[in-house]
Amino acid sequence: MIKIRSAEILSVGTELLLGDIVNTDAAFISRRLAALGINQYHQGVVGDNPERLAEALEISLSRSDLVIMTGGLGPTYDDLTKETAARLMGRSMYLHEESLERMIERMSKRGIEITENNKKQAYMPEGSVVFKNDYGTAPGLAMEDSEKGKIIILLPGPPRECEPMFAEQVEPYLKKFSDHILLSKTVNIFGMGESKVETVLRDLMLDSKNPTVAPYAKDGEVQLRVTAAGSDESECAALCDEAIEKIRATEVGKFIYGIDAGSLEEALVTELIHRGMTVAAAESCTGGYVAKRITNVSGASSVLDGSIITYANRIKEKFVGVSHETLEAHGAVSPETAIEMARGVRALFDADVGISTTGIAGPTGGTPDKPVGRVYVGVSCKGYEEVRELNLGAMATREYIRYVSASNAIDLARRALLK
Amino acid sequence: MIKIRSAEILSVGTELLLGDIVNTDAAFISRRLAALGINQYHQGVVGDNPERLAEALEISLSRSDLVIMTGGLGPTYDDLTKETAARLMGRSMYLHEESLERMIERMSKRGIEITENNKKQAYMPEGSVVFKNDYGTAPGLAMEDSEKGKIIILLPGPPRECEPMFAEQVEPYLKKFSDHILLSKTVNIFGMGESKVETVLRDLMLDSKNPTVAPYAKDGEVQLRVTAAGSDESECAALCDEAIEKIRATEVGKFIYGIDAGSLEEALVTELIHRGMTVAAAESCTGGYVAKRITNVSGASSVLDGSIITYANRIKEKFVGVSHETLEAHGAVSPETAIEMARGVRALFDADVGISTTGIAGPTGGTPDKPVGRVYVGVSCKGYEEVRELNLGAMATREYIRYVSASNAIDLARRALLK
Repeated sequence: MIKIRSAEILSVGTELLLGDIVNTDAAFISRRLAALGINQYHQGVVGDNPERLAEALEISLSRSDLVIMTGGLGPTYDDLTKETAARLMGRSMYLHEESLERMIERMSKRGIEITENNKKQAYMPEGSVVFKNDYGTAPGLAMEDSEKGKIIILLPGPPRECEPMFAEQVEPYLKKFSDHILLSKTVNIFGMGESKVETVLRDLMLDSKNPTVAPYAKDGEVQLRVTAAGSDESECAALCDEAIEKIRATEVGKFIYGIDAGSLEEALVTELIHRGMTVAAAESCTGGYVAKRITNVSGASSVLDGSIITYANRIKEKFVGVSHETLEAHGAVSPETAIEMARGVRALFDADVGISTTGIAGPTGGTPDKPVGRVYVGVSCKGYEEVRELNLGAMATREYIRYVSASNAIDLARRALLK
Repeated sequence: MIKIRSAEILSVGTELLLGDIVNTDAAFISRRLAALGINQYHQGVVGDNPERLAEALEISLSRSDLVIMTGGLGPTYDDLTKETAARLMGRSMYLHEESLERMIERMSKRGIEITENNKKQAYMPEGSVVFKNDYGTAPGLAMEDSEKGKIIILLPGPPRECEPMFAEQVEPYLKKFSDHILLSKTVNIFGMGESKVETVLRDLMLDSKNPTVAPYAKDGEVQLRVTAAGSDESECAALCDEAIEKIRATEVGKFIYGIDAGSLEEALVTELIHRGMTVAAAESCTGGYVAKRITNVSGASSVLDGSIITYANRIKEKFVGVSHETLEAHGAVSPETAIEMARGVRALFDADVGISTTGIAGPTGGTPDKPVGRVYVGVSCKGYEEVRELNLGAMATREYIRYVSASNAIDLARRALLK
């Protein structure tokens, strides 16, 4: 049995070297390998050139037990990953009938006739484990060399094909090489910065070996990945839950918005469905971002009937009933306007919860008094109203200010429901 | 004078190997290197481990003239990129007073006292070219070894620091090693698939050496990057323009929505500003995505006063005047509803152009008659109305269907203006 002590990802594609695409495959596979407890010390990218490809693969095989290659499985003459890897492993190619049939079936459904080029994708190195492709034509595969203790896995490059193939077929395959299982739970945190979370949980993170607790920050949020190793799922789950309870008991606790909650908007939609309530937003600086994120969630139609973007002051007055006096006295970017917008939109769409955003998203429009990044988000529901002031800084991009403003508005609404 | 025949990027950071972050630095720098005409054949990622880091750097230096390292310039003990690179180049470290002063000034402005850790960031390898950091504490640097013909450049990892440092300081530095300049123009195409564009332009792309023409597909769009080499900007621009004219003369021509136009939404906003017109959207399946994208564009406030999300049928009836009969007879997902929504929202917000979207974004809600991915987008302006049917396929994700639907709606509106 091959023992996988370390893995590395070798991505193939000139489009990566030209920067035309970002290597999200590598990030996705890395996260999954980490969750499987497989160490990764290197990653590489190389173009569609057979000599350089072979050279890079040799370096990878010399230092890692498992090499996962992505890309270069396409039908054209410059897609050479499979042929190069097979040659290096001393394998000849054969026509994998099942793959060919799948391909013909897939293409005929779309009314496309199969070309000789396509057939190339159905040839496999002898002795491969084949991973079928439900989202494209190129199958993936694994080649094992038990003597040298090495495995090469080849996956298609497009994330739509690579990610499900990895999750559904490669992970179960890789688990066979391990004598334990790993289980991760993600603690979703919003409202406390990464460095603060790390400071509070430093000792807990350093002391904790099983489960491990690892933080990562993303788009103004912090997530903690709690990963336990054990002999079965329930053992791992219990270890994770114990650690999560310890985290809940710290100051971080009150900023946790869910466990495996996915996103702030998913947590809000879940909470609204649970209570049979509806939401509507009146958005100024976020310009539709709040509604867009809520409706990202499949099933949002049961909690959102309508929503409005009130960019101009006349629209704020006419549709969500912000008073002319409030706009005159405090301006559009003010807590007073934010509250009136939230109240007004709730009435407009006859919703249970009204959300509002108004602020300076930049890069222009800032004043010394109201600089770029100053945003007010508001919420109004039966018996409860609140407004939150944000100062997101002049250094931040328009996209960042809009995104984090929407996050805060969604978070404020969810918290209002819990009150 | 060192001659840069090839470069490679070596990114340092355990967070990349864990998949906690995506390597956008590598994509950014790759794009810029390609634009500078510098070839890149490899990329690597390695963790914050001095032995593996030194090993990886040696491999990189053995095959490339320029190695650009990102990350590992932080203040903590495990940030070792600079020290490792300096050792490999045989350089000792000295305190770079200017960097220290900048750091003290920066931190004191924020009321933070400098620690010994931070001072480490102001030490530089002897003989370095220092790149100041306007967005963080870690300066970047370049070390040249004229004898071996090698250059190592070190940049901070956070994209907010890395990207402007590269654009503002590293690019001018690298241009000194070249005897010609390069200029790129991007041709923005929407409505024709990548493989079709490639088929039409195949000969032109293969024949064209200066400028080169390279296609790339992204989120349902195609862009062609036309890159010319020459002795000055006007020479390059003329070469690019000549190639662009040839492209315009093909079938691709009518799908071009701009040159360096940025995005469909930027093109629409520019066109609206140019005509002094306003726009409003009534969105169903896109749930705010159209408005969000239009308001991504700084200055959108002059063309968008308000916009509405009409998710529920009662909202479609009440606010944008879709008739009950239309909904009964044709359903919410129909060309008839799309047109009435576009017409209605135009009236609601007193806008010159009304946009609408209605469809099945999935993953649930599809029927044999109206499958997931069936979307209608509509436009209404004075004397002109149009609706476009989209079939985006059951395989596509909710995000993809929503994004491409919004793209089509925005494209339809822009084209309506030109009619």
